[in-house]
Amino acid sequence: MKFGFFDDNNKEYVITTPQTPWPWINYLGNEDFFSLISNTAGGYSFYKDAKFRRLTRYRYNNVPMDSGGRYFYIKDGESIWSPGWKPVKAELDYYECRHGLSYSKITGEKEGLRAEVLFFVPLNAWCEVQKMTLTNNTSEVKKIKLFSFLEWCLWNAEDDQNNLQRNLNTGEVEVADSTLFHKTEYRERRNHYAFYHVNVPIQGFDTDRESFIGLYNDFSNPMAVLEGKPRNSYAHGWSPIASHYLEIELKPGEKKDLVFVLGYVENSEEEKWEKKNVINKKPAIALINRFNSVEKVNRAFDELKNYWTGLLDSFVLKSEDEKLDRMVNIWNQYQCMITFNLSRSASYFEVGIGRGMGFRDSNQDLIGFVHQIPERARERILDLASTQFPDGGAYHQYQPLTKKGNNAIGGDFNDDPLWLILSTSEYIKETGDFSILEENVPFDSNPALAKPHFEHLKASFYHVVNNLGPHGLPLIGRADWNDCLNLNCFSNDPNESFQTTGNKKDGKAESLMIAGLFVVYGREFVALCRKIGKNQEADEAQKHVDKMVEAVKRYGWDGEWFLRAYDYYGNKVGSKENEEGQIFIESQGWCGMALIGHEEGMVEKALDSVKERLDCQYGLVLNNPAFTKYKIEYGEISTYPPGYKENAGIFCHNNPWIMIAETLIGRGERAWEYYAKICPAYLEDISDLHRTEPYVYAQMIAGKDAYKPGEAKNSWLTGTAAWNYYAVTRYILGIRPEYDGLRIDPCIPPSWKGFQVKRKLRGTTFLITVENPNSVSKGIKRIELDGNKLDENIVDSFDGGLHEVLVVMG
Amino acid sequence: MKFGFFDDNNKEYVITTPQTPWPWINYLGNEDFFSLISNTAGGYSFYKDAKFRRLTRYRYNNVPMDSGGRYFYIKDGESIWSPGWKPVKAELDYYECRHGLSYSKITGEKEGLRAEVLFFVPLNAWCEVQKMTLTNNTSEVKKIKLFSFLEWCLWNAEDDQNNLQRNLNTGEVEVADSTLFHKTEYRERRNHYAFYHVNVPIQGFDTDRESFIGLYNDFSNPMAVLEGKPRNSYAHGWSPIASHYLEIELKPGEKKDLVFVLGYVENSEEEKWEKKNVINKKPAIALINRFNSVEKVNRAFDELKNYWTGLLDSFVLKSEDEKLDRMVNIWNQYQCMITFNLSRSASYFEVGIGRGMGFRDSNQDLIGFVHQIPERARERILDLASTQFPDGGAYHQYQPLTKKGNNAIGGDFNDDPLWLILSTSEYIKETGDFSILEENVPFDSNPALAKPHFEHLKASFYHVVNNLGPHGLPLIGRADWNDCLNLNCFSNDPNESFQTTGNKKDGKAESLMIAGLFVVYGREFVALCRKIGKNQEADEAQKHVDKMVEAVKRYGWDGEWFLRAYDYYGNKVGSKENEEGQIFIESQGWCGMALIGHEEGMVEKALDSVKERLDCQYGLVLNNPAFTKYKIEYGEISTYPPGYKENAGIFCHNNPWIMIAETLIGRGERAWEYYAKICPAYLEDISDLHRTEPYVYAQMIAGKDAYKPGEAKNSWLTGTAAWNYYAVTRYILGIRPEYDGLRIDPCIPPSWKGFQVKRKLRGTTFLITVENPNSVSKGIKRIELDGNKLDENIVDSFDGGLHEVLVVMG
Repeated sequence: MKFGFFDDNNKEYVITTPQTPWPWINYLGNEDFFSLISNTAGGYSFYKDAKFRRLTRYRYNNVPMDSGGRYFYIKDGESIWSPGWKPVKAELDYYECRHGLSYSKITGEKEGLRAEVLFFVPLNAWCEVQKMTLTNNTSEVKKIKLFSFLEWCLWNAEDDQNNLQRNLNTGEVEVADSTLFHKTEYRERRNHYAFYHVNVPIQGFDTDRESFIGLYNDFSNPMAVLEGKPRNSYAHGWSPIASHYLEIELKPGEKKDLVFVLGYVENSEEEKWEKKNVINKKPAIALINRFNSVEKVNRAFDELKNYWTGLLDSFVLKSEDEKLDRMVNIWNQYQCMITFNLSRSASYFEVGIGRGMGFRDSNQDLIGFVHQIPERARERILDLASTQFPDGGAYHQYQPLTKKGNNAIGGDFNDDPLWLILSTSEYIKETGDFSILEENVPFDSNPALAKPHFEHLKASFYHVVNNLGPHGLPLIGRADWNDCLNLNCFSNDPNESFQTTGNKKDGKAESLMIAGLFVVYGREFVALCRKIGKNQEADEAQKHVDKMVEAVKRYGWDGEWFLRAYDYYGNKVGSKENEEGQIFIESQGWCGMALIGHEEGMVEKALDSVKERLDCQYGLVLNNPAFTKYKIEYGEISTYPPGYKENAGIFCHNNPWIMIAETLIGRGERAWEYYAKICPAYLEDISDLHRTEPYVYAQMIAGKDAYKPGEAKNSWLTGTAAWNYYAVTRYILGIRPEYDGLRIDPCIPPSWKGFQVKRKLRGTTFLITVENPNSVSKGIKRIELDGNKLDENIVDSFDGGLHEVLVVMG
Repeated sequence: MKFGFFDDNNKEYVITTPQTPWPWINYLGNEDFFSLISNTAGGYSFYKDAKFRRLTRYRYNNVPMDSGGRYFYIKDGESIWSPGWKPVKAELDYYECRHGLSYSKITGEKEGLRAEVLFFVPLNAWCEVQKMTLTNNTSEVKKIKLFSFLEWCLWNAEDDQNNLQRNLNTGEVEVADSTLFHKTEYRERRNHYAFYHVNVPIQGFDTDRESFIGLYNDFSNPMAVLEGKPRNSYAHGWSPIASHYLEIELKPGEKKDLVFVLGYVENSEEEKWEKKNVINKKPAIALINRFNSVEKVNRAFDELKNYWTGLLDSFVLKSEDEKLDRMVNIWNQYQCMITFNLSRSASYFEVGIGRGMGFRDSNQDLIGFVHQIPERARERILDLASTQFPDGGAYHQYQPLTKKGNNAIGGDFNDDPLWLILSTSEYIKETGDFSILEENVPFDSNPALAKPHFEHLKASFYHVVNNLGPHGLPLIGRADWNDCLNLNCFSNDPNESFQTTGNKKDGKAESLMIAGLFVVYGREFVALCRKIGKNQEADEAQKHVDKMVEAVKRYGWDGEWFLRAYDYYGNKVGSKENEEGQIFIESQGWCGMALIGHEEGMVEKALDSVKERLDCQYGLVLNNPAFTKYKIEYGEISTYPPGYKENAGIFCHNNPWIMIAETLIGRGERAWEYYAKICPAYLEDISDLHRTEPYVYAQMIAGKDAYKPGEAKNSWLTGTAAWNYYAVTRYILGIRPEYDGLRIDPCIPPSWKGFQVKRKLRGTTFLITVENPNSVSKGIKRIELDGNKLDENIVDSFDGGLHEVLVVMG
């Protein structure tokens, strides 16, 4: 069942009913100011950091669900309604929500009055603009009352929900003309305030929640709206809000535009005050003036659209499959940008207060984004590297506001360091910019410990080499990529977090996943060394890689697939000898991508085992059989009910590893099958089961052992976005930047006739046509650059011009 | 304006409208299992620890306010309503909520059907019993549908609200007959589950929130109720709930009783399972069987009432003022028991996840409670002492579940240690049990460091002596009793907590409040030493006390009042030299109670300054003038808007210190005036302004500088309860246990003719009649014990019998 449709021309998903199976959201903002907005205008805004600078209040897991947002109430005679249906939930004659790239447009119509609201965060502006267009489609004059509404968060989202004994006393506001200012704690340590403005004179306002809503009413029926009368209230403590009141007359057929601006301002210590206890409003006014007319707003909106057109122009696919095209050209790239910006901090499943930027997460997210704005990728890599420890280890997370490592989350996730090699090498392949390796980068945020970035990669590589276990395989530490496989934790206290509680110090558990990862990115490190002439370094590193390959073959092979790990006691994890959890996906993915034992048939066998054991209608589950009992020596993985999350859920992040491995051994049909199974555009028709948005990936889909297989959770902020984009563009479509140029090496279903790709790389545009006349999966028979035949399937004419590439498979 | 009335006979407050100015709540439970319940049945339950064992889910600061609780839905034909008005909010023909001692009874009636629900936690039982009595007051047969409802919390209340990416996957339930079990995480590290039972067969149920409520509905209109049809749903992840469905027929005039039980169970590791994945229900069934009939429930309820009658029987006042009697005899004692049990953890202002048991808080709470169950007071003292550091310092808080000090909250509040002397001495005075001093008690929860409890008191005393500043006054450390006076903190980062962030290490700020406190409890320590024959110890300690008195007189007197402190730079705090915050209440209270400089007129002058500067219509404010600017060298105190909280709010906790000091210098009229100003029963008529419950104290009432003076916040969990009870019983009424006996030394308004008190002490009952024929405030002309004249106003005949004491003032 569908709840809308893709409008590819406008790059929008159009939702046609407010009652989606779960709130379907979008993100506004690209750099500093961000908003989450659902299809009923729920959500919230924050500046840079969803924990420390939450601007508006939102309540997660609430009843009613998704309550709280930027709301409008229209009182048209006796009718009261909201353009986004919520919160009033009066039946609308027309409803539509268009989620576009960094904007959403929500339209409601009732009794001949249409209200269309365009929400977006302009480029280079710390504000959310809301352009409302009211149209009187009747032949009568309409006199309506309009109330805007949002509720302020007292900045620190965690404190806001818990420290009530303080917070109910601190709220402060100012009102000046049509602007409602939120200035709680500005008197003291804060140098920032927020405001909500509308570009016409108002006939009233409210800034105190209880005055507006009433003590016993709710968002659906505020007293002020019911009575059609604002209270002109000033909040003193309790809960500050911002609500404008407007009386509007519309002639038959008349259209009126209003511009609301939700803004954030910082003042320097010297310029905080206009006079005692009156905030300096100049920067707010300056910001407002940038968007105080429809023309200015339209111009800003055009700029935003052009910005996105530019971003998406680096990779444009034209295939026979419109679903594939819309994912590759629009939605998957868009989601990659969102994950790059937000990491795992704030979504409708991540509350924005627990997690900052993940070291592992952000390095991986980068591979889905690096082609869009390589300069930001470069900055991110250096930010990440500067939180690394001198021994190569890493804080697992850092706070975006401070860019400092987050001690509370801990470290010792032994896969972490290697992802820095991934991100750096992908950055260089995209840009050819080897200078990043010479950049001086602190360790542990300490400038005194700074070294060239190359030394960070080396530290990453040797962090594995220096932490090997009894079988010569990498020690897993607290956990590897699978946060929930906690082999040294042994927790029996339910109040402990598996991710942060003390581990056994002498833990000798080893990870085959890290082993494979090390071989893949160890080789990458070797290649990089050679590129910059460090051949001795390369030779030395290669030895360690070779040893790891041998160790995996010797100790990591279970007969039909790769083991997952050795546990604390040296027992096999992910072996047919086990009762549950006999096979895990991660080690098949990474040892497969590393082609370890390929000659001996190991990779093919392992991938066939994946097909046999882990595949189901909705994707590849993480492990099989699912755990039905708690295994203290495995940790959190066995705490989930079977079929969910890391316990045999379809953890979509790892599915593309298998896809890539399949392409490496030439099985395009199977890679494609796995791709389409979890790709959201292909799931649109089962949205009622899938529940989350059909335009973005979810972290997890319930697996075959679950109560409800196919039900997805945790959409948007997941490494799934980057890895699927990477798998489909680099390995299935096979358009793959390398140090020396752009390799073209598709691995597709034999039935495909071909496809075209526009790829911009290092300032040069390649128009690539792939033909598949012989219905093969892989292999290039002929390749031509501007009509000239090439010897190898790699193009390297980075002259800033436009080149046509013809590729004939066969 | 009133919203109910006191029913003193039943020891109840009767609320006659659901629409109180704020939710008016009550507490159920006395030892392990606790519930909060509002007058509309909102609230939640927990086992021992409101953070780690939250049983049902509650959302603070929600819209609509106070949503979530134990709810009943009655569908009577087309009418749908709830006995407590909420959540349906259908208009009722009759509504009443009776908050009694550890129980609440809520009655609603509509269209001739009456539903009365009695809520209580039986003694020695880990459950909340809900007895519902349905009465058909019409002449027709009624066929109704009844739905119960509660929502489970996934145990850890903090994690429950934040860790959604995990929690939405983990929910698990079982259903067996009429019992709905919540067993999330029981498969793994938990050994506990919860259940919700009703004592009759059910016709259906729901355990999945979305199935019951629907995705777009809310507590007021669940889909299942609207349609009159349960879904018989099983929760798998998402949000587990418990809802019974019952079809009930009532003949004209017929009455039916139902018993619902919300229970909590722990199983040993060996007895967790009945069979694989099926929980061992035996202990749940045993618990249910204790309350599976109306007779059993009534018996348990009688036991609870008797328990409370016994508790309150140690001190019974009969005065000319019924408001005073009801506070002293019922509500103030009741609140003291609640603060003893809950410390500051869970109220409608404290969310139950941030704060455990406070060292300072709990030691003080004890003085309001020690006469009720001295054995529990003894246990609490030893629990507190065992978290103390060997140097006498203390963790500021400990977790009730583990009884371990809470590192996250920190220490170095330099008043903390002294409160241990208060609690211990009050315990001994109450019981005569000096053996507590010999009890071996760990330091820092480490049995290897255990020493006799006396050594803890000594460590407390010398912690002050060993931490003196440049004027010989006590260093304040992180803060003293006033958490918000942070003289060594210098925080300019709004993300820092003033209570936990790093302080300047060389901080030399000194506290006059601690100085006064030290003199009071230093003398107490000296007296204790002498009592147990440690005269040399006493002499030594006395010297330190004398030196402190001199230091205060020399450096702590500002001319008309006592200074509050010296700041980090050695500047005066709370001096007429200051621009704002010229006078503070705490040092007047403690130096006054210590009678420092009384001979020189300092105390009288200081208290007169309090009257002049700090008094207002609603009580004594904390400081004056209020701070209007942030003073970084003062910290949090200057962050609050003027008139609120520590910035010139009426912080009720400290008002009784002034009352006591006033009685010490014989000014009963003024002490009484201060008492009545903040005493809730005297504020019942202005409930619309006061907002919080008229039967319990609030932590704070907005002061004269506030936007809305007289508006209270943070009711229930405040040291105010204990200190006011202490002030009124020990110092105004003057019935004061001492080591050697019961001293009787009233200090009352001269207009009082007298009063009678029954006081049980050390197993002996004293019936005390105080007469005031000459209209004095203080002074005893004659005292008789059983008709025999005594030389001194102290009785010490602890023979377990009954004695009459006649006291004639004059």
